[in-house]
Amino acid sequence: MFFASDNTGPVPPQIMAALARANEGHAMAYGNDGYMSDLRTRIREVFEAPEAAVHLVATGTAANALALATLSDPWQAVFCTPVAHVYEDECNAPEFFSGGARLVPVGEGDRMAPDALRAAMAARPAGVVHSAQPGPVTLTQVTEKGTVYGLDEIRALTGVAQEFGQPTHLDGARFANALVALGCTPAEMTWKAGIDAVSFGGTKNGCLGVEAVIFFDPAHAWQFELRRKRAGHLFSKHRYLSAQMLGYLEDDLWLDLAKTANARAARLAEGLRAVEGVTLLHDVDANMMFATAPRAVHRRLKAAGAAYYLDGDVEGPDDEVLSCRLVCDWSITEEDVDRFLEIAAG
Amino acid sequence: MFFASDNTGPVPPQIMAALARANEGHAMAYGNDGYMSDLRTRIREVFEAPEAAVHLVATGTAANALALATLSDPWQAVFCTPVAHVYEDECNAPEFFSGGARLVPVGEGDRMAPDALRAAMAARPAGVVHSAQPGPVTLTQVTEKGTVYGLDEIRALTGVAQEFGQPTHLDGARFANALVALGCTPAEMTWKAGIDAVSFGGTKNGCLGVEAVIFFDPAHAWQFELRRKRAGHLFSKHRYLSAQMLGYLEDDLWLDLAKTANARAARLAEGLRAVEGVTLLHDVDANMMFATAPRAVHRRLKAAGAAYYLDGDVEGPDDEVLSCRLVCDWSITEEDVDRFLEIAAG
Amino acid sequence: MFFASDNTGPVPPQIMAALARANEGHAMAYGNDGYMSDLRTRIREVFEAPEAAVHLVATGTAANALALATLSDPWQAVFCTPVAHVYEDECNAPEFFSGGARLVPVGEGDRMAPDALRAAMAARPAGVVHSAQPGPVTLTQVTEKGTVYGLDEIRALTGVAQEFGQPTHLDGARFANALVALGCTPAEMTWKAGIDAVSFGGTKNGCLGVEAVIFFDPAHAWQFELRRKRAGHLFSKHRYLSAQMLGYLEDDLWLDLAKTANARAARLAEGLRAVEGVTLLHDVDANMMFATAPRAVHRRLKAAGAAYYLDGDVEGPDDEVLSCRLVCDWSITEEDVDRFLEIAAG
Amino acid sequence: MFFASDNTGPVPPQIMAALARANEGHAMAYGNDGYMSDLRTRIREVFEAPEAAVHLVATGTAANALALATLSDPWQAVFCTPVAHVYEDECNAPEFFSGGARLVPVGEGDRMAPDALRAAMAARPAGVVHSAQPGPVTLTQVTEKGTVYGLDEIRALTGVAQEFGQPTHLDGARFANALVALGCTPAEMTWKAGIDAVSFGGTKNGCLGVEAVIFFDPAHAWQFELRRKRAGHLFSKHRYLSAQMLGYLEDDLWLDLAKTANARAARLAEGLRAVEGVTLLHDVDANMMFATAPRAVHRRLKAAGAAYYLDGDVEGPDDEVLSCRLVCDWSITEEDVDRFLEIAAG
Repeated sequence: MFFASDNTGPVPPQIMAALARANEGHAMAYGNDGYMSDLRTRIREVFEAPEAAVHLVATGTAANALALATLSDPWQAVFCTPVAHVYEDECNAPEFFSGGARLVPVGEGDRMAPDALRAAMAARPAGVVHSAQPGPVTLTQVTEKGTVYGLDEIRALTGVAQEFGQPTHLDGARFANALVALGCTPAEMTWKAGIDAVSFGGTKNGCLGVEAVIFFDPAHAWQFELRRKRAGHLFSKHRYLSAQMLGYLEDDLWLDLAKTANARAARLAEGLRAVEGVTLLHDVDANMMFATAPRAVHRRLKAAGAAYYLDGDVEGPDDEVLSCRLVCDWSITEEDVDRFLEIAAG
Repeated sequence: MFFASDNTGPVPPQIMAALARANEGHAMAYGNDGYMSDLRTRIREVFEAPEAAVHLVATGTAANALALATLSDPWQAVFCTPVAHVYEDECNAPEFFSGGARLVPVGEGDRMAPDALRAAMAARPAGVVHSAQPGPVTLTQVTEKGTVYGLDEIRALTGVAQEFGQPTHLDGARFANALVALGCTPAEMTWKAGIDAVSFGGTKNGCLGVEAVIFFDPAHAWQFELRRKRAGHLFSKHRYLSAQMLGYLEDDLWLDLAKTANARAARLAEGLRAVEGVTLLHDVDANMMFATAPRAVHRRLKAAGAAYYLDGDVEGPDDEVLSCRLVCDWSITEEDVDRFLEIAAG
Repeated sequence: MFFASDNTGPVPPQIMAALARANEGHAMAYGNDGYMSDLRTRIREVFEAPEAAVHLVATGTAANALALATLSDPWQAVFCTPVAHVYEDECNAPEFFSGGARLVPVGEGDRMAPDALRAAMAARPAGVVHSAQPGPVTLTQVTEKGTVYGLDEIRALTGVAQEFGQPTHLDGARFANALVALGCTPAEMTWKAGIDAVSFGGTKNGCLGVEAVIFFDPAHAWQFELRRKRAGHLFSKHRYLSAQMLGYLEDDLWLDLAKTANARAARLAEGLRAVEGVTLLHDVDANMMFATAPRAVHRRLKAAGAAYYLDGDVEGPDDEVLSCRLVCDWSITEEDVDRFLEIAAG
Repeated sequence: MFFASDNTGPVPPQIMAALARANEGHAMAYGNDGYMSDLRTRIREVFEAPEAAVHLVATGTAANALALATLSDPWQAVFCTPVAHVYEDECNAPEFFSGGARLVPVGEGDRMAPDALRAAMAARPAGVVHSAQPGPVTLTQVTEKGTVYGLDEIRALTGVAQEFGQPTHLDGARFANALVALGCTPAEMTWKAGIDAVSFGGTKNGCLGVEAVIFFDPAHAWQFELRRKRAGHLFSKHRYLSAQMLGYLEDDLWLDLAKTANARAARLAEGLRAVEGVTLLHDVDANMMFATAPRAVHRRLKAAGAAYYLDGDVEGPDDEVLSCRLVCDWSITEEDVDRFLEIAAG
């Protein structure tokens, strides 16, 4: 019953096998090999973007911070939500990579509203040297609260960014989970909706550690490569990154993994709604949910070995309500979910 | 006949097996798992340093740049050789990570001389605000020209750094190759010789991509962790880094791999010395060598498919001398070497 | 009728005379002269802080950004109000100087509340590597809306910072205006209230361009000097900075200038309260005020040549209400104020 | 007898008078005033560059570091001599402002040779991601050893930079001294010789503290303004910078001051050549010289109160030779020089 995060689960055998297949003989370093050129072609196909710049890094923070640094100047503001991973969970990585750009939180929750974005961007008028200049916008899809923006919502937000001549980045650490939730194509969720750059996550959905950074305008490629290198994120034995993602994309494995994870979360959410005293805090659109429950429920679950983030301590009054986060990775089984629900129900 | 670099070879089966073994069930993210605590213990044993801070990253550039940033201030000079990897091959990564510290090249070649180091450090007197302040020293072992510092040489250099109150970092991308060349212990080559921090390489000697950064003074640990995180170098599925290095260290695999690579290089060097017109440019102390040879020799080798760095073009006058670099990784066989030599001899 | 800012007025003759007096013969560069040592002594007396580190720069942004960089680490959050000069008007200078620390806005207006500060600091728990670490607090006194914190309010806020082991910086661009408003001593408004570092402004209150940065703990001195130098803020002909501030502090000139400016603002505020349709938006504690007034009022004032910041355009419906900012510098006369009021009244 | 530096002398009365004239009434802040627009026009005339971007800062380090940051990317190498002020005397300011660009020293002395520059630039091939990319070149005129590049020499060096598609910056801290030495126009010494950006010094030649940064391509203007602001180098009471330089340029004062300083240095050099045991180390092309002399000579001079940089201690064997630097500012008189020479002669 491991619901702590989707970065705690194992790697599916297909990806391990792809890694093993790549471990044959010698290959040129730094991505100058056939694996990367195959992968580049594959990702361009998946995104219907034959010119896109495609690069790999090993962590989501690197993907986000390098993408935003490439799209911004140090004297700009980058607009995000106040719960964005880049704002809350990367220890100032965007500031570091960008040379001191400002992250400006827009609104209150995990979903940016176009009007709030427009107001935040307008408050920093381009051409007034005293203020940070308006810079790129970054959205997270699946959001940090487990909800998914609709295509119209994405387009509305990228439209605001475009009003200010600014690009939009998508933090797609859970890209596949959002995609299968929406039932659309990668192109529809990105460049067709006005997205300029994507952190296309592999790690949370089954890879050992690989994320693709995709720019639909290939003019960003060379600067990105220099930034990646001087940040220590260019792998010498690069084939082991490419191979992971080749395996991930083969035979729609990535979509299957995400569908499974989302289905488990839906089952878990449905079950929790039926548990006395439990409240789900946001829509459960993908593979992650936030809930409140009486401490007694949490105590039972923790005692049974369930792993998940709990905001508070299991010791204390039984009926006090504590909030928690529950995430399903692809390896969570229906039995795991059902057992969790059974214990929760008491 | 792949002598381009030791980052082009495959991963030995023992390390792939260790990776597979780690791929069981769930594990807490970010190194909060048993794999990392086992590895920390193992590395402390290997280095006879029970208090050492041990952290993993995936690339050598990250290891070096994070270690130097942790040891320096942005207004300092970091002393290295002019052929140091940090100076020549990391696209200003040390400047980026350190927030603008200056790399100062000392001397002319791959081996720093104590007097030259002392002069360079003394030229930037601490306390004079106009000049960069003297900061840490970084040595590469095996050097970028394939030679190995003796223990007395290391101690002499760290002694100079200590005269100025500064620490010394060792870029050990080829740590194992140097160690087996010297026949000493890891402790003797590091803290017993005055080294304060080590980039302990795994990648070039067989891993997919993992380097340990070791500080013998654990007071550096927390700052390093913050720097690693905000640089995007903290892996979420960290067990796949730990597992590689656990496999690497098990049953002295790392030493065996390095001995093999060094032996192949020795065989290659011995053979090349016998080839008409070929000159070795430096001592061949480990698994890498630089040589000059007439173009005709290079043309034969390249035509036969040999891969290595050649300084120039195979087209041109036959007897013009061109220089090259040849590196043996653990997977190079005696047959590879002998075939290369046979073709070289013409 | 120049109410645009207190950085638009002339320099009083006493300061020009001090500059002329310093222009005699040769003086050692970079502050190694008698002027700076006299000034250091004088400022230590003024602040009853015989050990304080005292340094000069020429701009308020340099003073604030260098002070905050000295007090913070790049992986920290610096807490300020959302209208703070450092947050809104320095084009990401604090991020630049600090190497990427995060400015976190606390609350909504110009006055930080202790509970809001405590919540913001607690939300970034020290020791969790994913989040920015809690760092220093910076307060502005006079605030950006023209109000003045009481001594108890300052102490309450510095107390919160101390709960988290963090220092507090005071942006005193209008230090003198606040001081005479409170009628307290410099020591009472700073170190006795828990302030660790002060940007002690001279420019807005009559100097050509000079600010002192004062650290009550002299351990910060050397790092500050290095940061100042590498930021290009160490003046070679430093005596012309020292001389300004010596003139400024002589015979309580600085206090007299501030009293005059505050008195003019009080007269202006009192008069405006009597003008039909005009509303003052905040307490007028010092020499600056914000007001709303019908467009017709603004149109009359602008037509008569009054200079001040107006949020909107003089063209449009007469009775629409527009907000503005009015600042009195030391050189504003009672006649200027009265004429302004007369025109405003229509 | 103050030969320590040209930043230790007083300000000529014409510049003090210009400052006083500017101290009338109110003026808009941040350079949005008539003084700056007059000065911009004047500098464009002086440089025959009607489109040039002209901005002011208060220190030479700020001018150089901001100019180089504007012309470079953080992953580039900036080429200078190993004795360049930017390399030796700015405490890593160029690295700080540029976000971590690398300063690469070319050659051994104060005069860069075109072949050495070409070799240094070619050693960092554009397009190879591992190495710093070739970036701008910066020359100092008058050099740090007191010599002056001829126009052909400048053109040869800017030509090399252009071969690599890179701009050239001129550190003109002693611009006027070089100009009158060459007897050419500002345009000839800069854009007509291929210079793209100039730090046009005022401070060392008589101003209190002001330097103009001039870009002949105005496309750099806006980025420079943002960089200047976020570095705290935009003055609010900007008129006091403009006024200094207006006074400096009026009636050829700047040229007269430089002619005087150079003439004093020539007289000093001529006299020193006649002193037993004294050797001048470089050509004395402008207002600065380096010499060696027996300790007995230095001891006499120091005992008589002469101020200058001496490399060593006056205590020790009489006939040991010590080197020194001697600089003449505009206020040095013929009598000062003659008295110095008399004492030196013993």
